[in-house]
Amino acid sequence: MNATLPVTLEDVRSAAARIEGVAHRTPVLRSRTLDALVGAEIFLKCENLQRIGAFKFRGAYNAASRLTPEQLSKGIAAYSSGNHAQAVALAARELGTTAVILMPEDTPKSKMDATAGYGAEIVTYDRYTGDRVAIGEALAADRGLALIPPYEHPHVIAGQGTAALELLDEVGDLDALVVPVGGGGLIAGSATAAKGLAPAIRVIGVEPEAGDDTKRSLEAGRRVSIPVPRTIADGQAADIPGELTFSINRRLVDGIALVTDDEIREAMRFAFERLKIVIEPSGASPLAALLSGRITPPSRVGVIISGGNIGARRFAELCGI
Amino acid sequence: MNATLPVTLEDVRSAAARIEGVAHRTPVLRSRTLDALVGAEIFLKCENLQRIGAFKFRGAYNAASRLTPEQLSKGIAAYSSGNHAQAVALAARELGTTAVILMPEDTPKSKMDATAGYGAEIVTYDRYTGDRVAIGEALAADRGLALIPPYEHPHVIAGQGTAALELLDEVGDLDALVVPVGGGGLIAGSATAAKGLAPAIRVIGVEPEAGDDTKRSLEAGRRVSIPVPRTIADGQAADIPGELTFSINRRLVDGIALVTDDEIREAMRFAFERLKIVIEPSGASPLAALLSGRITPPSRVGVIISGGNIGARRFAELCGI
Repeated sequence: MNATLPVTLEDVRSAAARIEGVAHRTPVLRSRTLDALVGAEIFLKCENLQRIGAFKFRGAYNAASRLTPEQLSKGIAAYSSGNHAQAVALAARELGTTAVILMPEDTPKSKMDATAGYGAEIVTYDRYTGDRVAIGEALAADRGLALIPPYEHPHVIAGQGTAALELLDEVGDLDALVVPVGGGGLIAGSATAAKGLAPAIRVIGVEPEAGDDTKRSLEAGRRVSIPVPRTIADGQAADIPGELTFSINRRLVDGIALVTDDEIREAMRFAFERLKIVIEPSGASPLAALLSGRITPPSRVGVIISGGNIGARRFAELCGI
Repeated sequence: MNATLPVTLEDVRSAAARIEGVAHRTPVLRSRTLDALVGAEIFLKCENLQRIGAFKFRGAYNAASRLTPEQLSKGIAAYSSGNHAQAVALAARELGTTAVILMPEDTPKSKMDATAGYGAEIVTYDRYTGDRVAIGEALAADRGLALIPPYEHPHVIAGQGTAALELLDEVGDLDALVVPVGGGGLIAGSATAAKGLAPAIRVIGVEPEAGDDTKRSLEAGRRVSIPVPRTIADGQAADIPGELTFSINRRLVDGIALVTDDEIREAMRFAFERLKIVIEPSGASPLAALLSGRITPPSRVGVIISGGNIGARRFAELCGI
């Protein structure tokens, strides 16, 4: 790798030591049915079985645990409508402090309840008129809170990379690693870990067709903004890559595959009926890319299943049940 | 334990050696949410993530792998409407032979397709007028096939015990082990393994209220027959314990808890939304017993999640989605 990258394999290893015993070391599942369908050996790193139901806890806890005692005594802030909200809320509780989470006022009640259930205070804003970064930063400044962004932070990225580190540690060499891409933090951390351990591994991102900002940006060689994507993969509805994450991904990511929402639905149903696991739409996009043939896989492929936070009713609606 | 028991810890260990590399070593999941709700440390041995989606593959493969080359050359037979059918079909394929499975003619098409998908020939019978054991034995005799019964066989029972063996090997001492009870093969094998390794462990079975034949039989000290149970837990709809399984369970099982179908539905939904795993009704009964307070758990409790074979549509129907 290159010493000038903002996050290194050593940072990921250090994050792994931080989260040990706090985050789950999630299982790696195999399915011969899946292998036969895809024509490769597939290793599923199941972050849907992580605490709070998604990989986000890794990065949030790593970042929060590095705050000074004084910062921790004042509390943590975050902005998120999704899994990062719960991740920061739980990280705060684990570290004996409090969290204030800025969420859009139309966030589904179940997500607000889950976040509040970890002891966080929720502050809402109108996402059609408000800028969450600006409001979040102002909130943190007003109250003297340490803000943990969802992906634009080296400690967050390093934490997210620990899932790939565990996967490679457990299964040995892989030819490729397939990772969902939203803001780019998970794939940046994953690529840092994977290429640090095995420079020849191919790191492939997957985005929904409607949310191909990272694919376009990689092709253009600069961050490209797209209209706010309409996709069922709410965790991948970014309209522009992060600045920090893109600076890593443009050097470490080998390509991006796109999947349709229908392919994601198919993959969710396959995971339910054949793998017996619940995957949220964003988490199912790599599986969708493999099952639909959008990626022609080499022989040994790791997949990060990023999360499973979807209610039973919403699952049934999406999958047409 | 006692040398006169028909299955021993050594038999389970021998089965474990047989299935190594063929069956999955399934993960043990933890959930702090679950622990907090139940008030104990719960270790979930996830046989829903086993090959064919249930523990049944362990016993079927162990039994089939011990047939002579001549028997294997002629083929295997089984009678089952459920997971044992797929288990025997896959075991036959793995061992390079063929299987003939006797199934009720009203078996759901998805289950017939899954069984046929592993290469088995399916023969149907009318379950309202026919006796599956008699028909299955006649079929096997006619065609010269080795019959593998769903639970009344020491090699099947020993194979089913390997899940508990792996669980205890992975997590160390447990105070109790909670296991679903249908015909009694899984709990007989589990109790053999658990009490062989740790005589003080309590082994608790769980049956649906409508299918309490093993509870009644343990209380009576002899096998008691009940009307064919009406329950959503189709894998637990036995009307009388097996003779062989009961001879073990009467000596090794410490008690049976009963759960309602509604408690099972609740547990299935909890597993979906909080644990992110799919559990079929029979497999969810131990979780139902813990969540509903039917079992007052000691501090460290192992649970065998026995299977996950349920379609998405049926899941939604059962859980009222």
